[in-house]
Amino acid sequence: MSDTEIHDVQAYMREVGQRARAASRALARADTAAKDAALAAMAEDIDCGRAGLMAANRHDLEAGAAKGLDAALLDRLELTPGRIDAMIEGLRQVAALPDPVGAITDLNYRPSGIQVGRMRVPLGVVGIIYESRPNVTADAAALCLKSGNATVLRGGSEAFASNQAIAASIRRGLTAAGLPADGVQVVATTDRAAVGQMIAMPESIDVIIPRGGKGLIERISRDARVPVIKHLDGICHVYIDDRADLDKAFAVAMNAKTQRYGTCNTMETLLVAQGVAELILPRLGAALGEKGVELRGCPRTRDLLPAAVPATEEDWATEYLAPILSIRVVADMDAAIEHIERYGSHHTDAIITEDYTRARRFLREVDSSSVMVNASTRFADGFEYGLGAEIGISTDKFHARGPVGLEGLTSVKFIVLGNGEIRG
Amino acid sequence: MSDTEIHDVQAYMREVGQRARAASRALARADTAAKDAALAAMAEDIDCGRAGLMAANRHDLEAGAAKGLDAALLDRLELTPGRIDAMIEGLRQVAALPDPVGAITDLNYRPSGIQVGRMRVPLGVVGIIYESRPNVTADAAALCLKSGNATVLRGGSEAFASNQAIAASIRRGLTAAGLPADGVQVVATTDRAAVGQMIAMPESIDVIIPRGGKGLIERISRDARVPVIKHLDGICHVYIDDRADLDKAFAVAMNAKTQRYGTCNTMETLLVAQGVAELILPRLGAALGEKGVELRGCPRTRDLLPAAVPATEEDWATEYLAPILSIRVVADMDAAIEHIERYGSHHTDAIITEDYTRARRFLREVDSSSVMVNASTRFADGFEYGLGAEIGISTDKFHARGPVGLEGLTSVKFIVLGNGEIRG
Repeated sequence: MSDTEIHDVQAYMREVGQRARAASRALARADTAAKDAALAAMAEDIDCGRAGLMAANRHDLEAGAAKGLDAALLDRLELTPGRIDAMIEGLRQVAALPDPVGAITDLNYRPSGIQVGRMRVPLGVVGIIYESRPNVTADAAALCLKSGNATVLRGGSEAFASNQAIAASIRRGLTAAGLPADGVQVVATTDRAAVGQMIAMPESIDVIIPRGGKGLIERISRDARVPVIKHLDGICHVYIDDRADLDKAFAVAMNAKTQRYGTCNTMETLLVAQGVAELILPRLGAALGEKGVELRGCPRTRDLLPAAVPATEEDWATEYLAPILSIRVVADMDAAIEHIERYGSHHTDAIITEDYTRARRFLREVDSSSVMVNASTRFADGFEYGLGAEIGISTDKFHARGPVGLEGLTSVKFIVLGNGEIRG
Repeated sequence: MSDTEIHDVQAYMREVGQRARAASRALARADTAAKDAALAAMAEDIDCGRAGLMAANRHDLEAGAAKGLDAALLDRLELTPGRIDAMIEGLRQVAALPDPVGAITDLNYRPSGIQVGRMRVPLGVVGIIYESRPNVTADAAALCLKSGNATVLRGGSEAFASNQAIAASIRRGLTAAGLPADGVQVVATTDRAAVGQMIAMPESIDVIIPRGGKGLIERISRDARVPVIKHLDGICHVYIDDRADLDKAFAVAMNAKTQRYGTCNTMETLLVAQGVAELILPRLGAALGEKGVELRGCPRTRDLLPAAVPATEEDWATEYLAPILSIRVVADMDAAIEHIERYGSHHTDAIITEDYTRARRFLREVDSSSVMVNASTRFADGFEYGLGAEIGISTDKFHARGPVGLEGLTSVKFIVLGNGEIRG
């Protein structure tokens, strides 16, 4: 069905949802070999269909340019040969990951004689709402399929033709492996009403994962009638303790800020214990200045780094996603934890210290999805954590927290094995 | 603060929420000994204050009788000496459970040199909305406290005085152990607007657990602005396969239906493979008839059990919570699974079979929070499963599924231990 043929968006989305629900039962039962074969077939189909995919992408790029999309958006939209390679490689990597579905844990005998355990099971139908990058279509579909879920994907209107081309490869891959083609559906309309309907169908969609800007995610979280796995701010901190190894502190702080500026796990605020501020800040300030990082500091920071501008209350609560760093000198670890609790976003926070008891306390007391000792916040990532891949990073506490891989797309049910036991 | 002094319910609830949030930080950090000491002190305080508690309960009972509450409601409301004993024993049992908070699992080295693991952490603030049984106040508070959460409890108006008396003991217990008294708050107003405010404060309350009738739970799920751990229907099935041991089948079916009629894990529909219907149904029908169970059957069932009345389409989708059983003869296991998928509530379903491959398939393919082989559905319970206690049974897939014990009241965060590693 093409965009122009859909007149009743609500009815269309309800049908998409019903098809997804029906397909989800077959996918939940699908064995590992079938799912892996489908992923391999999708990779193959994309590889063989590069010309068509790139033509569809060119269509999107030209329409985007005509609509006046800015250069950054057009860049994210573009499918270069290298990006198509990465998409194909991503599908093959997900095929190589262990299948989480059906794994049984904690199977123990109880005094009644029954054995009770837990079996990992799919969530059912996952809805993904995302913005311009078309590679998400393949990446998200692969993770949802491997974890036994059906998927409904709603991409940005500017990537419509690219997403539909990828969707066609995905459907052919599912069919080739004997799985229902409706196991992955890409919404075939750019009508915004489709999103409103998609987030309000608990009978068809079990969870929504929005990927995109904060505005999109806040809107969806507010209006959704189903659970949302969401990623909001990444206001990440590094705290340099007065018992830090200052060489490690220097290396980690530089990496956490400057390895990439626009990622959610980039450090946005540096906290330094007053006992070592004089020893570390001038060196760090000079190196950050050389990299072109704008520094915004508390009064004590500005005593040590005259180039820093004054940090305002708002700075402490801002995710810059840019070469800007706010710096605060704090009395001690307790003051650092207090600051993180007050201004942070519970994403990723690190302490640099050689003190065993402080490291242990920081790990326990800082309430963030990733808490680190002597490591760069930039490691907060599904690949680095060994999850294989991630569908997003959750800043929620409920269900999934931090990088969400295959396991975050599943749930567990209880299983009971007996021999005719009855309850007395 | 007493009920009559609260004029602005919204403002009062916001204050309750803020106090809970503040207390939750201290509870998350509280060590096991302090939490266990608080639970022991609460038990002691309730034990020593029995006279006051029973006086408060008498007040509720008299007001309830004057309002015309029916006998079943008044029974649930009553705190007999035995029920107070059970409440005290429950607090001591939760103190004896292992502390889930801070447990570290899966701590492994990654190629980058960092060690990545998961630490179990509290959810934060748990809101419980419940109906007449005042013992829930102590039971729920104990589980939330042991799992490191602050709690806001909103009981039924008919149990107001009883709940406030228990709340006073809980506060004294917290204070005696050096924990913040606001760690457990029982809402001190019967104004219904308090519930509306309580489920719409994501900044203060992280999850809502409603306990009560289906109407209450549906209303709260629909209106809540925070995640809800909910328990809706328990339409549980036992399927007797044609390769069942018929003595086990008889024992399990009788137990699943007749051990207790009003519980959510009671069998409501019996499915029997046509190959053994003649062998098992007459025996079961006679025994169920002797117990006074009304039988409603499909045509084939009624051929074998003339006493059965015809089952309607609605019967298959009904949670009777009463001595009524619907019975259907099905072709085989696939037809049984199809029936369960169509009419069941994904709560607890069992197969009786000696066939290895069918048992394995049933466990994998039936999408319910508990799936059993050769055991009574009545075992679906936190105590029977070894969780120690349960705060409810979740029929959701997201976050927690099946009986929810201490672990379901927690989440996990990632921890990273390094030696100055940076990302390349």
